[in-house]
Amino acid sequence: MEVKNRIILALDVKTMERAFEVADAVSDYINTIKVGYPLALAEGLESISMIKEEFSSKIIADFKVADIPETNRKIADLTFEAGADAIIVHGFVGADSVTACMESADEHDKEVFLLTEMSHPGASAFLQPAAEHIAEMGVELGIKNYVAPATKINRLETIRNIVGKNAFIISPGVGAQGGETSSTLDFADAAIVGRSIYLSHDPKNTAKGIVDGIKL
Amino acid sequence: MEVKNRIILALDVKTMERAFEVADAVSDYINTIKVGYPLALAEGLESISMIKEEFSSKIIADFKVADIPETNRKIADLTFEAGADAIIVHGFVGADSVTACMESADEHDKEVFLLTEMSHPGASAFLQPAAEHIAEMGVELGIKNYVAPATKINRLETIRNIVGKNAFIISPGVGAQGGETSSTLDFADAAIVGRSIYLSHDPKNTAKGIVDGIKL
Repeated sequence: MEVKNRIILALDVKTMERAFEVADAVSDYINTIKVGYPLALAEGLESISMIKEEFSSKIIADFKVADIPETNRKIADLTFEAGADAIIVHGFVGADSVTACMESADEHDKEVFLLTEMSHPGASAFLQPAAEHIAEMGVELGIKNYVAPATKINRLETIRNIVGKNAFIISPGVGAQGGETSSTLDFADAAIVGRSIYLSHDPKNTAKGIVDGIKL
Repeated sequence: MEVKNRIILALDVKTMERAFEVADAVSDYINTIKVGYPLALAEGLESISMIKEEFSSKIIADFKVADIPETNRKIADLTFEAGADAIIVHGFVGADSVTACMESADEHDKEVFLLTEMSHPGASAFLQPAAEHIAEMGVELGIKNYVAPATKINRLETIRNIVGKNAFIISPGVGAQGGETSSTLDFADAAIVGRSIYLSHDPKNTAKGIVDGIKL
């Protein structure tokens, strides 16, 4: 996936009005937008195609899909049919559930991102001890795209070492959650920035500042 | 939660038309319906209130919520505001993420079900080894409602022993996935039945047969 300026906007707002405002403000700097359930549930799955068409952006549906294979397949089918370019899938539910999403992605010519670990404190209890095995499972399944946290750079480095230099890693947790952009991009291909931009009084200049900071 | 006849319908269909047909057919026997993302994404979150109002049923939103605390909170808020009586939450993502959903439930006077383990083969890789610790975490957090699989009766019994006899356990995997109703109800308070009913040519008689089977 080609991500402009290596920055993905996490558009975690609850209304299409605000989503359009923020996406419009940053459109000179960002061409890839991560949409989660809060927006998709509040405004419908069609919010994906609306944003995509208005801003010609790529959409990653951050649905952290974590169900049995049959249900994962239904969720992925609907998400790709709604226009998403990729879907984020939890690995801890096992290979069969992940494979169901990969089969849907193949049929729709879309992509799967495997979530290996997360950026919040609670992830240390169950997810972190399994994260390396989840990444290894992804490699065995032939997955090319991964999500690994920016708040734990040593963990991000470990995941990079497992999935290899040709894998594509996107990394949430930059900004409000404490992750730092430049060090994140030492190991990730793109950094996901949410609150720092969409809660900013000037999302455009905030996005510009982040992009300029990377280029320095 | 009072579940009529100890049977919950997993209404895993993709259209409101089919959802209404099946819910109507079984309404003499079932008053609690589990709605998942396939229906909520295809037909909108308002499908919850539409089913609830038409059939006076309780709705459990099986969204297997598995995100960071801030996002879990947004998902739970939207789900309860849409009329759901309860939401199913993954424990694997940690106590803070679960707590975010509990806080939303408390404010809306609704309920949280903690998912401890799942019924598909892939769950054996990462979820099953953590399931008992997830159940223990639920007890520590004061959670009263749990989800544990009908396909692995010994696992269901283990979870029951951890959460105690006063906890309320619902159990998916009955029917198409291989779980048997009566043995499930030895350890669970209610069994969740999906495909056996909604793929049946006669959902009403299938539901009746399941309920009659329990009473024998």
